[in-house]
Amino acid sequence: MLRPRKAAHLGVRGATIRLMSHPLSPLDRSSLVGEVGPVNMTIGSLIFVEAGPGLSYDEICNRIRERIHLVPRCRQKLDEGRTGLSNAVWVDDDDFDVEVHVRLAMLPAPGGQDELMRHVGNEMSRRLDRSRPLWELHVVNGLADGRIAIIMKMHHALVDGASALGIGMTVLDIEPEAEPCEPAPETEEERPGLLLRQARRFAVKPLSKTQRLVVEGTTRVLETSPSTAAADLREAADVLRELLRSRPPAVETPFNRTISANRSYDCTTAPLEIIKSIAEATDRTVNDVLLAIVTGALAIYLREAGVDPDALERDPTTLVPVSIRREGEVGGNRISVVIVELPVAEPDPLRRVEIVGERMDELKSAGGVMAGAIFVVVGGLAPPLLSPALSTVLSAGIDFPSHNLVVSNVPGPTAPLYLNGRRVLEMYPIVPLNPADQGLNVGAFSYDGTMHFGFHTDRALDPPVGRLREAFDRAVDDMAAAAGIDTAPASIAEPAPRLAWINRTFRRT
Amino acid sequence: MLRPRKAAHLGVRGATIRLMSHPLSPLDRSSLVGEVGPVNMTIGSLIFVEAGPGLSYDEICNRIRERIHLVPRCRQKLDEGRTGLSNAVWVDDDDFDVEVHVRLAMLPAPGGQDELMRHVGNEMSRRLDRSRPLWELHVVNGLADGRIAIIMKMHHALVDGASALGIGMTVLDIEPEAEPCEPAPETEEERPGLLLRQARRFAVKPLSKTQRLVVEGTTRVLETSPSTAAADLREAADVLRELLRSRPPAVETPFNRTISANRSYDCTTAPLEIIKSIAEATDRTVNDVLLAIVTGALAIYLREAGVDPDALERDPTTLVPVSIRREGEVGGNRISVVIVELPVAEPDPLRRVEIVGERMDELKSAGGVMAGAIFVVVGGLAPPLLSPALSTVLSAGIDFPSHNLVVSNVPGPTAPLYLNGRRVLEMYPIVPLNPADQGLNVGAFSYDGTMHFGFHTDRALDPPVGRLREAFDRAVDDMAAAAGIDTAPASIAEPAPRLAWINRTFRRT
Repeated sequence: MLRPRKAAHLGVRGATIRLMSHPLSPLDRSSLVGEVGPVNMTIGSLIFVEAGPGLSYDEICNRIRERIHLVPRCRQKLDEGRTGLSNAVWVDDDDFDVEVHVRLAMLPAPGGQDELMRHVGNEMSRRLDRSRPLWELHVVNGLADGRIAIIMKMHHALVDGASALGIGMTVLDIEPEAEPCEPAPETEEERPGLLLRQARRFAVKPLSKTQRLVVEGTTRVLETSPSTAAADLREAADVLRELLRSRPPAVETPFNRTISANRSYDCTTAPLEIIKSIAEATDRTVNDVLLAIVTGALAIYLREAGVDPDALERDPTTLVPVSIRREGEVGGNRISVVIVELPVAEPDPLRRVEIVGERMDELKSAGGVMAGAIFVVVGGLAPPLLSPALSTVLSAGIDFPSHNLVVSNVPGPTAPLYLNGRRVLEMYPIVPLNPADQGLNVGAFSYDGTMHFGFHTDRALDPPVGRLREAFDRAVDDMAAAAGIDTAPASIAEPAPRLAWINRTFRRT
Repeated sequence: MLRPRKAAHLGVRGATIRLMSHPLSPLDRSSLVGEVGPVNMTIGSLIFVEAGPGLSYDEICNRIRERIHLVPRCRQKLDEGRTGLSNAVWVDDDDFDVEVHVRLAMLPAPGGQDELMRHVGNEMSRRLDRSRPLWELHVVNGLADGRIAIIMKMHHALVDGASALGIGMTVLDIEPEAEPCEPAPETEEERPGLLLRQARRFAVKPLSKTQRLVVEGTTRVLETSPSTAAADLREAADVLRELLRSRPPAVETPFNRTISANRSYDCTTAPLEIIKSIAEATDRTVNDVLLAIVTGALAIYLREAGVDPDALERDPTTLVPVSIRREGEVGGNRISVVIVELPVAEPDPLRRVEIVGERMDELKSAGGVMAGAIFVVVGGLAPPLLSPALSTVLSAGIDFPSHNLVVSNVPGPTAPLYLNGRRVLEMYPIVPLNPADQGLNVGAFSYDGTMHFGFHTDRALDPPVGRLREAFDRAVDDMAAAAGIDTAPASIAEPAPRLAWINRTFRRT
């Protein structure tokens, strides 16, 4: 009465695995080996969706069932064999069942920010099960305003660009009507082209510039051979380690002690218009403004923690992924990281933007490279996914902290996305803490006219993550006020329905 | 701003671990090593609690926080060191946080039997995180009738008797008013006596006979040295393997093929009075009647699966834990298992009771031991916990299936228990599938006047678990009808409020 298992389980397993197995890339392996002690290499997203039909447990499971063949890695598990991770391979999981990966959770009453943030922190403290495909989707009910929250968890080892963008594509649409999807292929050989064809189908639609960039990125990822990408990363890591040895270690801060295995999380938003207006007012990039806001937030937060920013030996540093595609350059996804010093002792918000901007310019110039900036070219890896990978590489190669935190800023879609016909209202990034002395990091993601910020920290961080979020909000307000930007809600086009705590108003202070 | 970690994390960790570490018992180790491929050694309970105050996420977390020091193992995690499981030790988890172990889940609408059973099946398909203390508690909301369901998950390696009973004692009370609890001890040395003193405090209250037995059992467990228990088990396992070699392999049935990693679950109840009335009518024990009901259910189920019970080469066999404490014997908890053949080809329900009873008598007699019954004496291990342990031992020692399924029948409290003041209405056992060719098993637990049955199966079982539960219900009805027992609900004293699907009426058919 047990249904006969597939051939793979009936004696010819070895042969079948040889046929279907895929070796781990060096990057996959490093993120798995690096996940020891307090380090958890799960990448997360927190997504809010408007309430309505289409979001039941079965409807979400069915949606994933219909499309998961687009992303074969999401049906594959690790086979560590007898030799452990050193020779691990990805094999199809014959026991794959969507329901084991999708959970329905509920918030404790009253279902406000506190309850949701605790829930996200608890969830990000839980590791993914290595005996299964390394992803989970949590549908969270019980929000006071009736919206649905979704937490996506994905192991960094799953995130080789194609998988990361692909899993998003399996659940999200660019129109309320779901995009039709090609059925699962009959043979292994037909697989690789599938996601590419699906991506191209998106590309013929009238897309925003950013969406087109995402689709182009996906296409490039899919056309890049994994071995080329791995070789690029290896080479980049060697250069990187050499450069790091010539840099001084990061300054000692209280948030760079050994972390625990437990996490806290908080998030906030700012209208993209405000950030852009500040960038225009200061004649700097959006990214420069974001880094200056982080600088302002850190200054407030350090003081609350009893540390005087003026008394620090050096400025704290952050690892920042940046694009270095040259004007007019076609193809070739040149992603880099720089380690930039944040001027926490500078009291003037606008002056902070200038200082950060000048430092970034210097780092991005050719001379800057030689002077200590770190440039990496990795075929097709998207920035949010790159930074934890690089942190792994960094922490493996040197024995001192090279940076104090990670700030990932990723441009996302400028138009709304949909999940089974329901509009996606907000999308927040959750970037893993890595290496083991990184007590906090900041993720930024622009979506549908709003910047979404996620603060992921060690649970033992004191003051806790909520104070960091408040410091961040204050830093945004201070900077907008200094630039004379009107932050009244009226200036925001089409505000999405949201809880008061998420819809913080940008009051002049 | 990261709070300073405990000394254990600040450079003297090695020394601290030596001080606080506890070696794994051979039984712990075997249940951890045995958890490979499709085998998941998580023991579960499904508990229904009446709605009301006291059951919020925070209240349940707080309850566990106040009492968890009674069961030190529940705050300890595995340290596999560099040598893997062979020299693993239990160490205090400095990152222990109750919230990481307690989840708030929600059922999909309409929150009936189907939704709850799917949820339990999905949960039991998920392994426990080996980087944390090996237990989880899931508070399930969304039941149509407003009751709360609780799923306890505990790794078999955690279940050394004291821990298993202890974790129950940390969350459950024998009176609506919570029993006061001694505070956490200051030193490691004060720990061992704590749970014992707590158990003795229970013992001075007017308890039912069964409750007193449970308390006595706990006391004995706590007074038995772990090394004695381990030696007992090793010795028993040797005897067991020798005896098994002299038995023919279990008959081939369709539910003894290689299982998957996915589980299904279903459950049902029968008033204890009805089972007892059948036992009286047939002059046999409650356990004999249960085994005969399982026999009847298997006969129905085998036919549905296209197998003619008459055409089987031999009767299917079940591993059954039995007590062999002799009359008048004081102390010494003599727990044994027998492998008994179930007469699935016998059409008369009452005759099945007689046949099973005779076989059990024979197995329990001195002659029966020599003729193939397997007796094991293990200091203090409770029967529900013993059977998976023995399955591990059995599957490790021989290369053929020794039995077709496991039926665990455990007497529980005869009076109601409470969780933070709310009455516990129903308690169902979830026994792990082990070894890897065991596609189904049956757990029975008596509580507050009702027998609770849990059917745990491989998800690929066909017909699925629901058909097994229906076959079981039918077998109970058939047997009651044959014995002329009145199964009308009116005969059940004080029926607890419950869903229609759980409160199946014992109609005469």
